Amino acid sequence: MMNLENYIRDVEDFPKKGVLYKDITPLLKSHEATSNALDQFIDQLKGQKIDKVVGIESRGFLFGILLAQKLNVGFVPIRKPGKLPSETLKSTYDLEYGKDTIEIHKDAIETGEQILLHDDVLATGGTAAAACQLIEELGGELVQTNFLLEISALNGVEKIKQYPCVSLLKY
Amino acid sequence: MMNLENYIRDVEDFPKKGVLYKDITPLLKSHEATSNALDQFIDQLKGQKIDKVVGIESRGFLFGILLAQKLNVGFVPIRKPGKLPSETLKSTYDLEYGKDTIEIHKDAIETGEQILLHDDVLATGGTAAAACQLIEELGGELVQTNFLLEISALNGVEKIKQYPCVSLLKY
Repeated sequence: MMNLENYIRDVEDFPKKGVLYKDITPLLKSHEATSNALDQFIDQLKGQKIDKVVGIESRGFLFGILLAQKLNVGFVPIRKPGKLPSETLKSTYDLEYGKDTIEIHKDAIETGEQILLHDDVLATGGTAAAACQLIEELGGELVQTNFLLEISALNGVEKIKQYPCVSLLKY
Repeated sequence: MMNLENYIRDVEDFPKKGVLYKDITPLLKSHEATSNALDQFIDQLKGQKIDKVVGIESRGFLFGILLAQKLNVGFVPIRKPGKLPSETLKSTYDLEYGKDTIEIHKDAIETGEQILLHDDVLATGGTAAAACQLIEELGGELVQTNFLLEISALNGVEKIKQYPCVSLLKY
């Protein structure tokens, strides 16, 4: 199996002093690594039925739409406030400093649909937990959350522990 | 051939009064429509060799990465300022009110690589022209620009007329 870790670049002091940033652009630049990560995500679903894939703006759009196409299902974007033009549900959550909000179109999910939620990185889990809440408010059944990589020290899995969670890489 | 127009939703007065917004989320929500749009993009390349696909944040990430995977090549994101962690090239361009900046990683493209640029909408062409400039500064050869839809009245094609341009839908 390909070691995806070789395609993640460490960048020191980004976005601020003392932070070691995990850059996924080398992985995206490699067709083979992207394709391999996609296959690993599919394997981890273990054949469970998925009706829609939800991806979180903006890097969650990347493997989100790839997964949707691979699974032959539709893709639903969760976006930052004010970006989705039709009627939305919003969820506001706490950040280290301040708050943030995400939105989903109200007509994006039908009651009872089996949902896969994807984002590129699981850090504190605040965004992911807010996204799970939106999906459930729309009547979706969250089958799995998945992430390219997880910053384990931040313990984001705790915030979404009621759902099966897959991360291809853990730091 | 599937009429993709049926999957674009008109939203009045978004993002501001008097604007008729073209919402692509119904297309994304349909696996068949997404798949059909992808096939149309591939057809329009007419077999030309592509080494990398560049997609513009954030909706340009969607078909950008799908095209890259379909063509078996890497994907390169162009992002809003301050998002890319490693060394970047920047381009600043005029908006209706004020200015905007986009960035690309300096190591994203090798000299002489054949590049396909994708974004979801071609409006005034400001962002697309700035993206083309970044790609050429890195030594990339722009083979084609493509867009899901084009707002013809804004004449964005004029700003990128030195490159072949494909839009699946024109309004």
